[in-house]
Amino acid sequence: MPAYATNMRFKFPIVALSLEIITIILYGVFVVYDDGKSEGHGHDAHSNETEHEQPMTLYPMFQDVHVMIFIGFGFLMTFLKRYGFSSVGVNLLLAAFGLQWGLLMQGIWHLHDGKIKIDIFKMINADFSTATVLISFGAVLGKTSPVQLLIMTILEITIFAINEHLLAEVLGVSDVGASMTIHAFGAYFGLAVARVLYRPGLRNGHENDGSVYHSDLFAMIGTVFLWMFWPSFNSAIAEPGLPQLTAVINTYLSLAACVLSAYAISSLVEHKGKLDMVHIQNATLAGGVAVGTCADMNIGPFGAMLIGLVAGTISTVGFKFLSPILASNLGIQDTCGVHNLHGMPGVLGGLAGIVAVALGKKAGHSAAMQAAGLASSLGFGLVGGALTGLIMKLPFWGQPPDQNCFDDSLYWEVPEEEEENEESLAHADHSKNKAEV
Amino acid sequence: MPAYATNMRFKFPIVALSLEIITIILYGVFVVYDDGKSEGHGHDAHSNETEHEQPMTLYPMFQDVHVMIFIGFGFLMTFLKRYGFSSVGVNLLLAAFGLQWGLLMQGIWHLHDGKIKIDIFKMINADFSTATVLISFGAVLGKTSPVQLLIMTILEITIFAINEHLLAEVLGVSDVGASMTIHAFGAYFGLAVARVLYRPGLRNGHENDGSVYHSDLFAMIGTVFLWMFWPSFNSAIAEPGLPQLTAVINTYLSLAACVLSAYAISSLVEHKGKLDMVHIQNATLAGGVAVGTCADMNIGPFGAMLIGLVAGTISTVGFKFLSPILASNLGIQDTCGVHNLHGMPGVLGGLAGIVAVALGKKAGHSAAMQAAGLASSLGFGLVGGALTGLIMKLPFWGQPPDQNCFDDSLYWEVPEEEEENEESLAHADHSKNKAEV
Amino acid sequence: MPAYATNMRFKFPIVALSLEIITIILYGVFVVYDDGKSEGHGHDAHSNETEHEQPMTLYPMFQDVHVMIFIGFGFLMTFLKRYGFSSVGVNLLLAAFGLQWGLLMQGIWHLHDGKIKIDIFKMINADFSTATVLISFGAVLGKTSPVQLLIMTILEITIFAINEHLLAEVLGVSDVGASMTIHAFGAYFGLAVARVLYRPGLRNGHENDGSVYHSDLFAMIGTVFLWMFWPSFNSAIAEPGLPQLTAVINTYLSLAACVLSAYAISSLVEHKGKLDMVHIQNATLAGGVAVGTCADMNIGPFGAMLIGLVAGTISTVGFKFLSPILASNLGIQDTCGVHNLHGMPGVLGGLAGIVAVALGKKAGHSAAMQAAGLASSLGFGLVGGALTGLIMKLPFWGQPPDQNCFDDSLYWEVPEEEEENEESLAHADHSKNKAEV
Repeated sequence: MPAYATNMRFKFPIVALSLEIITIILYGVFVVYDDGKSEGHGHDAHSNETEHEQPMTLYPMFQDVHVMIFIGFGFLMTFLKRYGFSSVGVNLLLAAFGLQWGLLMQGIWHLHDGKIKIDIFKMINADFSTATVLISFGAVLGKTSPVQLLIMTILEITIFAINEHLLAEVLGVSDVGASMTIHAFGAYFGLAVARVLYRPGLRNGHENDGSVYHSDLFAMIGTVFLWMFWPSFNSAIAEPGLPQLTAVINTYLSLAACVLSAYAISSLVEHKGKLDMVHIQNATLAGGVAVGTCADMNIGPFGAMLIGLVAGTISTVGFKFLSPILASNLGIQDTCGVHNLHGMPGVLGGLAGIVAVALGKKAGHSAAMQAAGLASSLGFGLVGGALTGLIMKLPFWGQPPDQNCFDDSLYWEVPEEEEENEESLAHADHSKNKAEV
Repeated sequence: MPAYATNMRFKFPIVALSLEIITIILYGVFVVYDDGKSEGHGHDAHSNETEHEQPMTLYPMFQDVHVMIFIGFGFLMTFLKRYGFSSVGVNLLLAAFGLQWGLLMQGIWHLHDGKIKIDIFKMINADFSTATVLISFGAVLGKTSPVQLLIMTILEITIFAINEHLLAEVLGVSDVGASMTIHAFGAYFGLAVARVLYRPGLRNGHENDGSVYHSDLFAMIGTVFLWMFWPSFNSAIAEPGLPQLTAVINTYLSLAACVLSAYAISSLVEHKGKLDMVHIQNATLAGGVAVGTCADMNIGPFGAMLIGLVAGTISTVGFKFLSPILASNLGIQDTCGVHNLHGMPGVLGGLAGIVAVALGKKAGHSAAMQAAGLASSLGFGLVGGALTGLIMKLPFWGQPPDQNCFDDSLYWEVPEEEEENEESLAHADHSKNKAEV
Repeated sequence: MPAYATNMRFKFPIVALSLEIITIILYGVFVVYDDGKSEGHGHDAHSNETEHEQPMTLYPMFQDVHVMIFIGFGFLMTFLKRYGFSSVGVNLLLAAFGLQWGLLMQGIWHLHDGKIKIDIFKMINADFSTATVLISFGAVLGKTSPVQLLIMTILEITIFAINEHLLAEVLGVSDVGASMTIHAFGAYFGLAVARVLYRPGLRNGHENDGSVYHSDLFAMIGTVFLWMFWPSFNSAIAEPGLPQLTAVINTYLSLAACVLSAYAISSLVEHKGKLDMVHIQNATLAGGVAVGTCADMNIGPFGAMLIGLVAGTISTVGFKFLSPILASNLGIQDTCGVHNLHGMPGVLGGLAGIVAVALGKKAGHSAAMQAAGLASSLGFGLVGGALTGLIMKLPFWGQPPDQNCFDDSLYWEVPEEEEENEESLAHADHSKNKAEV
């Protein structure tokens, strides 16, 4: 691929502005404020009843989810030594566009007088829809251009909205914390994209595909914000009252237990017993993913903790043993290891949901439908991701060549290398690195 | 200016402690808790009605604003390579003093039995008042001493409170998100100060007036927190119910659209099509500024998005083309480019408010009064800033000489340069850089 | 001590997994969701009344406290140049385990039908219990192994729960913001542990016991989040209504005043008048600690500010003058200076509480009992810490040798030293530092 193909000067602005202008026109036609005068809409009638009386009740929950999307996912991916601008910056771009698109795609299933009425509940769901894209972004991090990723955003959110509608409205699946519809779907979607975009040239690794000390600390900002606010993610759209409280408690405890198993297994699998930052940054969160589907069910505090314990274990083991196999044998180069954080724990969450429903932990749902929902999410993810990957593979989207992967400087103005360090050695040389501001 | 003039040993402690002690005495005389027994006070009777019944209703909003003030503004300014301590540290100092002073200055217009009654609503407004100072701080960042900045804090907040009272109570201006009273006012105040403190010696730039890789990532912490919580900023003091919800939705959508235009234009104006961190850190926020005045008005979701789209565009263009002209032709050295983030978008917000009121989007307000409010904010900002600049220019406030600008080590103990890097080269030399803790 | 003793490969996983499995079993036996059907329980009947009707009322408060525990404490300790992974990572480990253990230890005093019923109120208290451990962690930071710290977590939280029960239920002490039960207790517990673990070999300092420029900025993330959310910490379990509002206002103002005195005294005690990051990172928070006990009392806004002013002063003076004396004369090597941030301000808070109760600022409490509560907290802290230190000193917990103190690489996989810097000099050498991900 010739190097100039990565110059985004016209390609990117045209795509980004066109998408935004189309979106604004669609909003002009379809979207209005929710004035509280319709009679129940969206996924959860109970929630909306409350909404109408006090439209801001869910706002603190929304802000927690917002922080997870923009700080959590954004900084989690800054672990790469030279890809921090793209991680947090492209995360912002994709999520900002994705939430606009997601609100449309989710809303068209529930029109009222031909309109989508925005409220906080819908804003939370719009944020949720972007999470699928950010998960898939993790699988292809460092190997795709912003234009490719905008295309992925549109397609993935559209497919997500179809699958979610199928599960929630047709199959009647219960998935309050979205283990299946977001995590498993987003992970397998991303892995399918990564498979299609397989790069043999990166088989032996890449010098920039790793962290430095400070980049690992930046990533911990993302990890800890995700960890703290995950109870909000899993309970935001739960039925108010005891189910919502249950979702908070189960997630809180699952995550706490998950930390212990992630740390323990990380130390166990390393021959000197040391902890590995990759595990700590990711596997500590698997408990939040895995408890998602049955977060609002009466599985008991210890049940939630058991799920977390198992999730932390399989996630860490996955990073250590499974990811290298996927890369070398299946051609799936999963930069952030989303299979370990979202894929396997998401499937675990779906399975736990099947069992919990079968045990009668949530009335009005069927274990078979839960299983169908898991299969549907995996199917839509894998097939949707493969098709999306083929479109992303078209040669005019500015995909980076192998040698420029994992490097911000292809798409970003990057300040000259660490002037202060050179200075501390040279004690001179003031002018040449002048960074303009 | 002789170098010793920047020694703050007695100057700074005396000024800081004197101000604090005077403030405490004034609080002893004037300030009491709001026990909920008075009959409506503050800017918004509706809000206070609610407050009296449930005094903590606004508390989550307050905390969001608090995060914007202390993390948002503080880290946004850490982009400079050697000025991070001052950015986040002096930000904390100015905001901590400013909120105390702001509560007094805003409260004296609304005494009850000779007392100012504190509640969460007043705390939000006190935080707001500090935002003006932090915006102006951005214009003079790196070129002023802490003592100068404390003086600016007192004067600017006092003038802000006068202008705000004039707009809200005399002219009856609607400005819920404070595009005019905070953003335009704060920006032009700061630019006037910067003009008075013009430094010919910095005409050709300064080696430390730029970022390094990690400092740009620290700045993104500020950007993203500001971006996420801006809906709270613009809705915190809105009338509860639909107007507050509208303010949240408009801000959320304006910011989302603004991201797309900021990214697109950033890539478009750079000859290789690369993204510029300065634009991403700042212009992505212009949508929050520009939608402020009409955030709670029925401008339609697509109206909010159009405002955001335009704001992101003019802000990015301003950084690229206008800031260099202001610096070279008008002698306005605007370190953070507050003209592009707060100045022009603030004026745009004021203009949008005039149009929206003229179109009847908010009953009970007049387009002429809106225009008067914008003019008043610009006038108070420019004149107040010029006068304040003259006082700050007095030669005994410890202003840094040109060569020490943008350098923490003038006012802070700074650890020896990056010991670990030297070590990684020298593999020796343990004792000389010992930092005491 | 032979070096291999620090290999955690089996020691740490066995301890961590055993503790977690025991905890899960105990949860299976004792812990259930709070279904809102019991009649008042926990520390504060009023609060629980509200809880039963709206179980999520306290959730935003809980999340603020959660951020303080995991981001606040975690990043505050990242100031050390080579100990950031341990600071934020082990903080997460201890707090995640501690909250599970704390919920049990606090809950066994209030069983209902033999069960502990979890609600948000209990989750806040569980988070609180971990704060004691994180404070003590600061005293021994860099000089202890994860296994030692897990042992400290269990013992300290158990002892904390006994002392807290004694104060709240037996002595009837008022300590809403926990100046005594958390801050003074945690600090003196940690100092006692540090005394028992005294290391003569570190008498003359250690090359890694200091900060670098970026690590000080990471620490400011912790400082600012603690500072912002401290009003939530001090008011979370206050009686709803005016007392809770009072706790918010008092803490907000005390912290604001404290910033001014911390900055002023920091500049005053340094011979060139420069600010010291250690003071700014820590002493600015002393106002939150010191106003804790009387946060919900009618001490007047100026009273809260006076407490903050004094707290910032004694804390800064303590860092400058007292800490070196404690280290050299008493053998107390207090890495983070918790004596200055939590110890002395905690005692000040307890004393202020005695005075405030004596002045009738809170009905139904006795100054003598307040004094007894302070003495009890100090006694349990010092004796409990000494005993815990003796157990931690047993030679098989993997304590680091002197030369490996303050160094992540003993317990963590650490990426090779700052590859990019070497590269910027060598312009070559791609393969040797490859970090695996």
